[in-house]
Amino acid sequence: MARLNSYHLPPDRWPGADGLANLDGPEARHLLGVLRARAGETVRLFDGAGRHGLFEITNVASKAKAELRRLSEVLEPQPLRGVALALGWNKSSRRDWLLEKGVELGALGIVFWQAARSQGEMPREVKESWAEKCVQAAKQCQTAWLPELSLLPGGVEGLLRVAADYDGCYVLYEAAGPQDLLNPQELAGGRSLVVLGPEGGLEEREAARLAEAGFKPLSLGPLPLRWETAALSCLALAHHALLQP
Amino acid sequence: MARLNSYHLPPDRWPGADGLANLDGPEARHLLGVLRARAGETVRLFDGAGRHGLFEITNVASKAKAELRRLSEVLEPQPLRGVALALGWNKSSRRDWLLEKGVELGALGIVFWQAARSQGEMPREVKESWAEKCVQAAKQCQTAWLPELSLLPGGVEGLLRVAADYDGCYVLYEAAGPQDLLNPQELAGGRSLVVLGPEGGLEEREAARLAEAGFKPLSLGPLPLRWETAALSCLALAHHALLQP
Repeated sequence: MARLNSYHLPPDRWPGADGLANLDGPEARHLLGVLRARAGETVRLFDGAGRHGLFEITNVASKAKAELRRLSEVLEPQPLRGVALALGWNKSSRRDWLLEKGVELGALGIVFWQAARSQGEMPREVKESWAEKCVQAAKQCQTAWLPELSLLPGGVEGLLRVAADYDGCYVLYEAAGPQDLLNPQELAGGRSLVVLGPEGGLEEREAARLAEAGFKPLSLGPLPLRWETAALSCLALAHHALLQP
Repeated sequence: MARLNSYHLPPDRWPGADGLANLDGPEARHLLGVLRARAGETVRLFDGAGRHGLFEITNVASKAKAELRRLSEVLEPQPLRGVALALGWNKSSRRDWLLEKGVELGALGIVFWQAARSQGEMPREVKESWAEKCVQAAKQCQTAWLPELSLLPGGVEGLLRVAADYDGCYVLYEAAGPQDLLNPQELAGGRSLVVLGPEGGLEEREAARLAEAGFKPLSLGPLPLRWETAALSCLALAHHALLQP
């Protein structure tokens, strides 16, 4: 069977026992307006929180509203292991790109934090457009789980407040030595939080405060990597380690 | 010591026993025009083929020509292990980006090949701008070796002609199974050539021809990754494996 197009139906709109769902908004406009799907056709819906299934279009109510009936459903268990990246806030064109890669490579979460060298002030709330970017990436790679997006104000202290939610906390820091070489199996052994500075790097006192609080320093080698290369390497290494039998 | 700015002096212009070098062109204009360096200052030069060293500016002949004297030199041995990526030709905005990542993550080479699903015709020669992109990336990450850039015409048969130059040849293919999960240690165990299709993927007959010729299929997991995510994951995994003690 050729791969079906996927559409996102948020968890609060996922059908209960009757199996009946309504798709509207941009997802419906794409399905009906662009792809001109008709009643009787089958599509894949996913909620980004583990549920996905095949649905039959039972009625096209308008160009932007389809009624569907569930044919089958799979619930994929929540990943208990993997990496959440805590990225120093940047006014970066790379943000959308990293959200996309986070989805593809199975990040548990993407956290933005306000670092001393962050450019600009972080917004107070996660932007709708970031979640949308993640949904688009999930449609492409067919993952069932979207990373959790969050913002941590309060600098390093903000990071310390969430540390207890993870099995291990780490910080990628350029002064880390060869003995601190990132161990993908260790990261993938539980829920790991990996902190990266903003593009200008961490200040020494930030790194010291994190180390003091038990965040382990991580190195990706002796040569300096760009911000997005380091972030992506970290995701790719953990993703690969999670696939080990 | 703070990190010195690096300037590229190609191997054919690297000084001999007298240690005297001339820097001109864009590199000299940056050094002299933008950074306003003066006689007596020290800079780092590298040739991208393993040699780098500290040089003192002895004379500023014009805004675009500096004369320098070698103070010290290091020759880093040619990497004998690592990955060369053979990327199906794309009219891709991601090309420059992948060249940059190839430099940062220590690719031995970046090879473009003309695949059945390539968009457009490959140029006949490596573009000056690609080499320039690599030089810029090397200045940032301070690597001593630039990846070798090449173009392989003739489709899959072109790839087969260079296979003997490598210790192992591989092909990232979406039909590869869990038993084919990429083994970073294996890739990093010698000179490895890793083939990726263009953005539309390999045709089945291309994959079959490569398999027949001994290219081992590689998987990066059950979910489809985007072209550049797959390429970069492969580089990041090999880079990390090369750092293992």
